[in-house]
Amino acid sequence: MFNGRANADLTDLAHSRGLAYGDGLFETLAVVAGKPLWLEAHLDRLREGLGRLNLQLNESVLLKELELLLDKAGKPQSGVIKVIICRCSGGRGYSPASQQSDRLLSFFPATKPAPYWHDGVKITLCQQRLSRQPALAGIKHLNRLEQVLASAELQARGFAEGLMQDDSGLLIEGTRSNLFLVRQGQLLTPALSRCGVAGIMRGKILEYAAQSQLPARVADLTLADVYLAEELFLCNSVFGIWPITAVDCHQKSIGPLSRHLQEQFKATFDV
Amino acid sequence: MFNGRANADLTDLAHSRGLAYGDGLFETLAVVAGKPLWLEAHLDRLREGLGRLNLQLNESVLLKELELLLDKAGKPQSGVIKVIICRCSGGRGYSPASQQSDRLLSFFPATKPAPYWHDGVKITLCQQRLSRQPALAGIKHLNRLEQVLASAELQARGFAEGLMQDDSGLLIEGTRSNLFLVRQGQLLTPALSRCGVAGIMRGKILEYAAQSQLPARVADLTLADVYLAEELFLCNSVFGIWPITAVDCHQKSIGPLSRHLQEQFKATFDV
Repeated sequence: MFNGRANADLTDLAHSRGLAYGDGLFETLAVVAGKPLWLEAHLDRLREGLGRLNLQLNESVLLKELELLLDKAGKPQSGVIKVIICRCSGGRGYSPASQQSDRLLSFFPATKPAPYWHDGVKITLCQQRLSRQPALAGIKHLNRLEQVLASAELQARGFAEGLMQDDSGLLIEGTRSNLFLVRQGQLLTPALSRCGVAGIMRGKILEYAAQSQLPARVADLTLADVYLAEELFLCNSVFGIWPITAVDCHQKSIGPLSRHLQEQFKATFDV
Repeated sequence: MFNGRANADLTDLAHSRGLAYGDGLFETLAVVAGKPLWLEAHLDRLREGLGRLNLQLNESVLLKELELLLDKAGKPQSGVIKVIICRCSGGRGYSPASQQSDRLLSFFPATKPAPYWHDGVKITLCQQRLSRQPALAGIKHLNRLEQVLASAELQARGFAEGLMQDDSGLLIEGTRSNLFLVRQGQLLTPALSRCGVAGIMRGKILEYAAQSQLPARVADLTLADVYLAEELFLCNSVFGIWPITAVDCHQKSIGPLSRHLQEQFKATFDV
């Protein structure tokens, strides 16, 4: 659905700055019990991204289009919505002529969930690294070639996910998820001030930790922290929480804090 | 023109990985005397990019479409062609399902050239820096938010171009051009192994230098080199060579080597 129209003329899309330069943002929202999950948190991150890229978006129009999208999809109980917001076209050249944005919304039906929530997941360390760019760190922008290259690597090596380091060797995140580790009962997750995407599920877990007096800290972490961790898990707002059972040859067991957090979010994800 | 059709159904474009992740490449070619300038060099860079992103492209099809594009535009003598090559859509998620690519070609009529070829250009140092990503350095991929942010900065400050440093302070390039400087009669241009785009004009100048026994070197350069340089110029394959007359408050005069190189390429650009 392009700017609210299911059968829109897509000529503008051919000149989109989203396509030309990745000049835009996206959000991927789980649909649970017929509604977009954690919509407000996704909108918050979108607002942060719009500010960084100096883009405008009429939020009430977007909210109406999200409803329309679900109506047109037959009011599904579950699935995934992808929202792309990109700067309107305005001639050739990098200079942004406009703050106005186009909206492209898609619905994807639910697929059978991977068994990793229950069984845990064996992951690897990606060779592809993340570059440091504070101006773009944290937001979910459309420049995702590093994730594409890392995912191609995982695909070739047969892994469902992998950890990514920045160019100085700091651990940042998975290719499509955030990382948590547990050490001496404390939750730790990598700082995302230089690169990485500040995931919605990561935020919800940190929020839950703060509310329930569970010690949690955002920190600069390295591979050594992974090897020393008592528990490790990945999270995102579509698959929830995946305990990690191995990082390459380093075995881990699924620990009590990972299971506790899964229990807290079980109903939310309808697992 | 999408995949060879002027009035193509653009539905595929809405699910394009070019739009979703910037998973693709582009080339901007000047049209001079009715033909794309330095087509072979552009194809060379495209091949390098296709290899890095693991993408396939039928070159003879692209060549036919370039001809068709110019025919449809009324066989213009001058102008600019933009070619976008992006990975075909293949579901949601970063993993590239396919090596196949879509082709989107556009023609832009010639505009009045800026006076900078003759008069030189006053530029600035961009605050926005380039991140280091060797996997993507040199190629002209679609992840261009750093250039967009830098161009927005230039626009706000009233400059036609600006120099970009990487996050360690090495000088890399302009936002849409490459940098050369002259010191003790030697041509120097920044190394592009960690970031930056290996421009076609940069390549042609280095080629000319090699053929005419003009000393030239690719090196790690900093701002100090700019301040100490006897001559400075920017280049790209659309505007040619722009001598730099000031970098912020540091004045430069247009030197003999810059004028000599312009003389060599004058006929090519039909200046």
